[in-house]
Amino acid sequence: MTEIIEQGQRARQSARKLALLETSQKNDLLATIAAALRANSTAIMTENAKDLAVAAENGVTEPMMARLRLDENAIEIISQGVEQVMKLADPVGEGVNAWTNEAGLKIAEERVPFGVVAIIYESRPNVTVDAAVLCLKAGNATILRGGKEAIHSNRALVKVIQAALRAFGLEEAVQLVQSTERASAKQLMQLNGYVDVLIPRGSAGLIQTVVQEATIPVIETGTGNCHIYVDASADQAQAEAIIINAKVQRPSACNAVETVLVHEAIAATFLPGLLTKLQQKGIEIRGDETVQSLNESIVPATIHDYETEFLDLIIAIKVVDSTATAMNHIERYSTKHSEAILTNSYADAQLFKKGVDAAVVYVNASTRFTDGFEFGFGAEIGISTQKLHARGPMGLTQLTSVKYVVSGDGQIRH
Amino acid sequence: MTEIIEQGQRARQSARKLALLETSQKNDLLATIAAALRANSTAIMTENAKDLAVAAENGVTEPMMARLRLDENAIEIISQGVEQVMKLADPVGEGVNAWTNEAGLKIAEERVPFGVVAIIYESRPNVTVDAAVLCLKAGNATILRGGKEAIHSNRALVKVIQAALRAFGLEEAVQLVQSTERASAKQLMQLNGYVDVLIPRGSAGLIQTVVQEATIPVIETGTGNCHIYVDASADQAQAEAIIINAKVQRPSACNAVETVLVHEAIAATFLPGLLTKLQQKGIEIRGDETVQSLNESIVPATIHDYETEFLDLIIAIKVVDSTATAMNHIERYSTKHSEAILTNSYADAQLFKKGVDAAVVYVNASTRFTDGFEFGFGAEIGISTQKLHARGPMGLTQLTSVKYVVSGDGQIRH
Repeated sequence: MTEIIEQGQRARQSARKLALLETSQKNDLLATIAAALRANSTAIMTENAKDLAVAAENGVTEPMMARLRLDENAIEIISQGVEQVMKLADPVGEGVNAWTNEAGLKIAEERVPFGVVAIIYESRPNVTVDAAVLCLKAGNATILRGGKEAIHSNRALVKVIQAALRAFGLEEAVQLVQSTERASAKQLMQLNGYVDVLIPRGSAGLIQTVVQEATIPVIETGTGNCHIYVDASADQAQAEAIIINAKVQRPSACNAVETVLVHEAIAATFLPGLLTKLQQKGIEIRGDETVQSLNESIVPATIHDYETEFLDLIIAIKVVDSTATAMNHIERYSTKHSEAILTNSYADAQLFKKGVDAAVVYVNASTRFTDGFEFGFGAEIGISTQKLHARGPMGLTQLTSVKYVVSGDGQIRH
Repeated sequence: MTEIIEQGQRARQSARKLALLETSQKNDLLATIAAALRANSTAIMTENAKDLAVAAENGVTEPMMARLRLDENAIEIISQGVEQVMKLADPVGEGVNAWTNEAGLKIAEERVPFGVVAIIYESRPNVTVDAAVLCLKAGNATILRGGKEAIHSNRALVKVIQAALRAFGLEEAVQLVQSTERASAKQLMQLNGYVDVLIPRGSAGLIQTVVQEATIPVIETGTGNCHIYVDASADQAQAEAIIINAKVQRPSACNAVETVLVHEAIAATFLPGLLTKLQQKGIEIRGDETVQSLNESIVPATIHDYETEFLDLIIAIKVVDSTATAMNHIERYSTKHSEAILTNSYADAQLFKKGVDAAVVYVNASTRFTDGFEFGFGAEIGISTQKLHARGPMGLTQLTSVKYVVSGDGQIRH
C-alpha cells in the first residue's frame, strides 16, 4: 500500500504543476513524447516481445496477439495519435458560465483539470499512451494500472514517457502501478484523497469489480446491450442496411446492436429478407415464436439472450405490437448505452427520443456512431454508461472538472 | 433488502412517468404538495411532537430542538419553499450543445432527469420536503433516508406528499426508507440498477461512511475547511470585515472560515486589531508563534487545528512569507470547498485563482457566499466537494444528467 500511496502523492504534486501550464507548453510535452516513442521503438519492441512470448505460450488467439503487438507500424500509429491530440482544442480555462450575483460578485465557472485521473485497463498497450496523453492535454496527472498480459510493454512505454517528461520537471505526471496483482488494483480503487476520478476500461467483469470495490469517484464505461426498434412506418431497405451495419461492422464493439425489435405490422414483409441477409453474413439469429415461424433455422430467444451483450455474430430478434412495447423491452434490458428507432412517424420518433433513457438515442441511424471520433471530439477516453458527470462518448472536455472563480470588492454576506 | 429493492423498482417506474411530464404539470404537482402540507399541518405537528418528546427525553439542546420542531410557522415556511421551487426555471429539455457530424447526423445534447435520486440525511425534517420537491421539479423520483431523530416527522411529511402525488398517479415518486437501522442506509447505498445518484447531507462522519460503503454513484458534499489569505497589499479594513463575517455570521456553516493566513509584512500592523475584534466577538484564537507574540491569550495552533473544520467560534491564524506559502498550506489542509485571497495585487490574485484547487476561489470577498441561493440558483440540494459532475453549490441544473439525441436519414458507419 505504501508504494501506491507514494505514487498518489507524486501524481498529486505533478498535477499542481500541470494545472499551471499553458496550452503551448502541454503541446510541447506531447511533441516530446511522440518523438521519444519513435526514437525508442526498438527498446519498446524488445519489451513487447516478452509479453508476446508469454501470450504465445498461453495459446492466445491471433486477434488477441494482434491487439498486444507493438511493431514499428503500431508505434508509428501511436505516435501519430499523440500528435493528433496536440491539435485538439484545450478545454482548460474555457468559460462555462459567468454572471454577477445580487451582491455584485462576478462569478465565473471555468473548466479546470480534474487533477489526478486513474485508469484501470486490460490488454492493449496502446491504451497506456493514449490515456496518458489525453489526460496530460487536459492538465491531469495519471496513475495507470494495466493488465498482466502487457506489463512489459506498459513498463517500456511509461519509461519512455517519463523520460520525455523529465525535461519539463514532470516525470511523475504519468505513473504506472508496477504490480499486476489483484491487490494493487484494489488499492488504487481506494486511493481517496489522491485520485479525483477512476475510469475503468475493459470487460464487463472489470467494470463491475470497480463499481463494487472503488471508494473513489468512478465513471462507469462501456457495457452496451443496444437495441434497434423497427417501427411499422420505417423505410425497410434503410432499416435492413442499418441493422446489418450495426451488427456486422464490428461485432465486438460496445455500440454494436444486440437485439432488434420489429413492429408486428411489418414482421411478414420485413423479416424474411432481413433474416436471410443476416444468415448470409454468418450471423446466428435467436428469435421469438413469430421469428422462428418465418425461418426454420432460428434458435429460440431466451430472457438470457435479451440480457446478453453478445459482442459476437449473434443477434436476438423479437416482434412487438407497438413503440410503447418496444420501449418497455428496452427499459427492462438496456444498459442505457445506445438505442435506436427506425421510423417515418414523427410522433413515434418524438416518443422514443423523450422516453428512452440512454446515453445516445438515435432516429434512423446506426448505433455504431456512439464514438468520440464519430461524434467529432477527436479523441475518446471511453463511453460513459452512468449519468453522473459525463454520458456517452468522453473526449477531452469530459476529462475536466470546473471551478467557480468569484471576484469581489470586499463583499460580506448579510 | 427485499423492501428496499421494491422501493427502488417503484421509484424507477415513477421516474419513467416523471421524465415525460411538461414543466406546467410538474408545477401542478408542487402546488398540490404545498396545499397538502398546509391542509395537514395538524397531523404533521402531532407526529413531530413524538420526535420532540424523544429528543427532550434524550436531553437534546435547544438549538437541536429548534431544527427538529415543526410548528405552524415552520410548515408555512416549508410550503412557501415549495412554491418558490415552482417559480424556478425547469432545466429538463435545455439544449446544452448541438452540432452536425461529418456523416450528417444532427447531434443534440440535452438535459434530462437523472431518474432516481437517493438522499441520506440527518435530523432536520424540512430536508424531506425540500429534497423531494427539488428532485420532482428536475423530473426525478427520490428515495429518502432520514435519521432516527425525525422519523415520525419524516413519515408524516412523506405521507402527505404521497397523498398529493396520488392524484397524478405518481404516489411512488417519493419514497421514504422506513427503517432507521444502519443496515437500511447501507442497502440504499448499494442499490445499483435502481438509483442513479446518491447525495449524502449531514455530518462529516455520515459522508465518509457513504464514500466508503456506497457502490452507486455518489456526490460528496459539505465538508469545508476554508481559508482566507490576507496578502501584504490587502485593504486591511476590508480584510477585517471579511474575516469577521466569514467566521461569525454562521460559524456552523460549511463555508465559514476556519484558518486565516496573513502575510508577514502586515502581521504587525494588521493582526493586533483583528485579534482584538475577534476576541470581542467571543472567538477563541489558535495562533502560530508570531500570532501568540502579539496577544497573550492566544492558544498555540497545532497541525490538528489546521486540519479541523471547527464549525464553531474558533479560528486558527498563521503568518506566512508569501502567496506561494499560503497556497502550499491551503493545498495541504483544504477540503477544496471555498478559499479566498484578499489582495490588491493583480499578479497574486491571478496566481491564487489559477493555482488553488477548490470548488470556489474568491478574490476580496467572504467565503460565506458559497451557497445556492447567494449564487442565484434559487435552490440548493447541497454543496459538492468532489470534482465529478458538479462542484460547489448544486441547484436544479445539477440534479439533471444529459443525453444525446441523434437524428439521421439512414446513416451507417463506414
